[in-house]
Amino acid sequence: MSARDRPLRVAVLGAGTVGREVVRGLLEPQGDLVDRAPGIELVGVAARDLGKAMASGIAESLLTDGPAHLVASPESDMIVELMGGDEPAHTLIAAALSAGKAVVTANKHVIAHYGPELEAIARRTGAALRFEAAVGGGIPVLGPLATDLAANRFTHVRGIVNGTTNFMLSAMHERNQGYAGALADAQAAGYAEADPTADVEGIDAANKLAILARLAFGAWLDPDSIERVGITGISAEDIGGAAGAGRVLKLVAQAQAQAQVDGGAAEIGAVVAPTAVPATGSLGRVGGGNNRIELEGEPIGRVAFEGPGAGGRATSSAVLADVLALARGAGSTWGVLKPAGGLVRPGAMDLATPTRYPSGARYPEVD
Amino acid sequence: MSARDRPLRVAVLGAGTVGREVVRGLLEPQGDLVDRAPGIELVGVAARDLGKAMASGIAESLLTDGPAHLVASPESDMIVELMGGDEPAHTLIAAALSAGKAVVTANKHVIAHYGPELEAIARRTGAALRFEAAVGGGIPVLGPLATDLAANRFTHVRGIVNGTTNFMLSAMHERNQGYAGALADAQAAGYAEADPTADVEGIDAANKLAILARLAFGAWLDPDSIERVGITGISAEDIGGAAGAGRVLKLVAQAQAQAQVDGGAAEIGAVVAPTAVPATGSLGRVGGGNNRIELEGEPIGRVAFEGPGAGGRATSSAVLADVLALARGAGSTWGVLKPAGGLVRPGAMDLATPTRYPSGARYPEVD
Repeated sequence: MSARDRPLRVAVLGAGTVGREVVRGLLEPQGDLVDRAPGIELVGVAARDLGKAMASGIAESLLTDGPAHLVASPESDMIVELMGGDEPAHTLIAAALSAGKAVVTANKHVIAHYGPELEAIARRTGAALRFEAAVGGGIPVLGPLATDLAANRFTHVRGIVNGTTNFMLSAMHERNQGYAGALADAQAAGYAEADPTADVEGIDAANKLAILARLAFGAWLDPDSIERVGITGISAEDIGGAAGAGRVLKLVAQAQAQAQVDGGAAEIGAVVAPTAVPATGSLGRVGGGNNRIELEGEPIGRVAFEGPGAGGRATSSAVLADVLALARGAGSTWGVLKPAGGLVRPGAMDLATPTRYPSGARYPEVD
Repeated sequence: MSARDRPLRVAVLGAGTVGREVVRGLLEPQGDLVDRAPGIELVGVAARDLGKAMASGIAESLLTDGPAHLVASPESDMIVELMGGDEPAHTLIAAALSAGKAVVTANKHVIAHYGPELEAIARRTGAALRFEAAVGGGIPVLGPLATDLAANRFTHVRGIVNGTTNFMLSAMHERNQGYAGALADAQAAGYAEADPTADVEGIDAANKLAILARLAFGAWLDPDSIERVGITGISAEDIGGAAGAGRVLKLVAQAQAQAQVDGGAAEIGAVVAPTAVPATGSLGRVGGGNNRIELEGEPIGRVAFEGPGAGGRATSSAVLADVLALARGAGSTWGVLKPAGGLVRPGAMDLATPTRYPSGARYPEVD
């Protein structure tokens, strides 16, 4: 644990739902909770819409619409990237790490797609890269995987990792609603975007599965090669059919390692698909926007992590913890784990034959 | 993250169920999992019964029956205490920390009772003290609380933290068994000690609750002052009565912070008691020797950790992770949290009026 002599100067890129809460957390006095001399200093916030950012309570003196300036500035030691999406987030993160600046991000798309490149830069320059908030919102799972569970060999990872689709599927079950109505409600409640593709097609879940697999199995899976079925084809009939069998349909992400050979790249199967799970089982009980991630390995056996998988406040918990970890000298999220190489194409999962449901669709069943 | 120039020399005190698995883990080549140059070297194992330790596969050249010699030896950098109980464990841990040696322990009794003293020594000498395995067996919960969740203010902690009583209560529910039969079965299965007092009277659970409260609320609760009811009075009638109401009886440990004033010592309520929970709810579903710990705070909301709460192999996962964390320069389990003072007497919990069950006993109900 290295103690710094001067405050850690943090710049936040993005002032959306998560960014606003992180800025609020960084400005709050937390001295009664955390012993973090020499302190953290917020030096700038980049926002697309400066007026909106000011209206949300961020001081004008902190604001800029030029995120690249904050990355390049000699006045910043750490970059907190909360813009989301592909570019410019990817380039800004790579630039910060290349310049030896620590980076915290919640960006699952960038970590899943550019993980090998960013890990290589971070290891080369010695800059730390932390991304706990990229999976499971506020739930601690990546840090525990790489530190508290570092002595294990994992064989299985599975979970409900997308809050939007879980909110929709829960509503379809509880209110006997169809897909279109559930989507409209999720959009009205702020759970789904105007363009819901990344959530409902399982793209977001595949990105998160790839990140989980990096920490559990030691290899970066190509997220675009993960077998993936979305929830758009699920009918009210199917929901009813599942309920009749004591089951509920959930979007489940699963990966398994058949054997770990030299760095773990060998045989990893992965899939994201609507799956029929027992209604009162560990996954079936996860309601609303919650997430649950289950891990199986040796010597631990099975462990699970559960909680809010989205939302600005919950997600800010993970981002702020990463900032605090860096302030006390902790390294990257992969901790003591071995370096991973380039993107690996995953195989298929060894699923049982899917059961045919009333609409004619077939869903795998797991317990 | 500080890199060491020479191997970290580890001595293990205790070669029982957990000790044997930790020794096995330390001797196994883990290079394909973990990047941990400059390595960890096992320099000695103290065992009460040398013959039994040798029979379990530990090399005679490593063994000694003098744990104090391993603590005092200039050849050890880190002490892993797995003897359990009060003395000599407490004195050996204090001596190691006083000498500036890092300590890893699974000893909930010692951490709960001597926490303030050991924390003060560790902070004074700069030696790290880690005790992840003291709560929840292999489940990562203390590390996540102090690091991944460090930005939160917690208001509630509750959980099933004793595997023995959960094994017994699960059997009583599933097999409609009485207390005596369930105890005999748990003893035969190796889940309960010949003298089961610490488990069945809730003493073990109170120790674990005190340790959770230290990390969640910032104060060391006096474990002997925690309101505590054991499971010895639970009858088959009560189990049946609970089942009739869709509930199961679980030994639930709960603590809440009414207000956090200057270091968090202010108003902490705590209780360990048999509690009627919904059979299909988050706590009701936890079967066998498993544990589940739920936390509530801001900004995270609710998070939960679930998994094997006991057993040599599962517990060794937590002990080995603490050793790896120290090898890469991590500090004590309390991480960035503020120093806590002496033992604090907890108040009572604000529980709803307990419901009267068939035997006349009254059990609180929570959802």
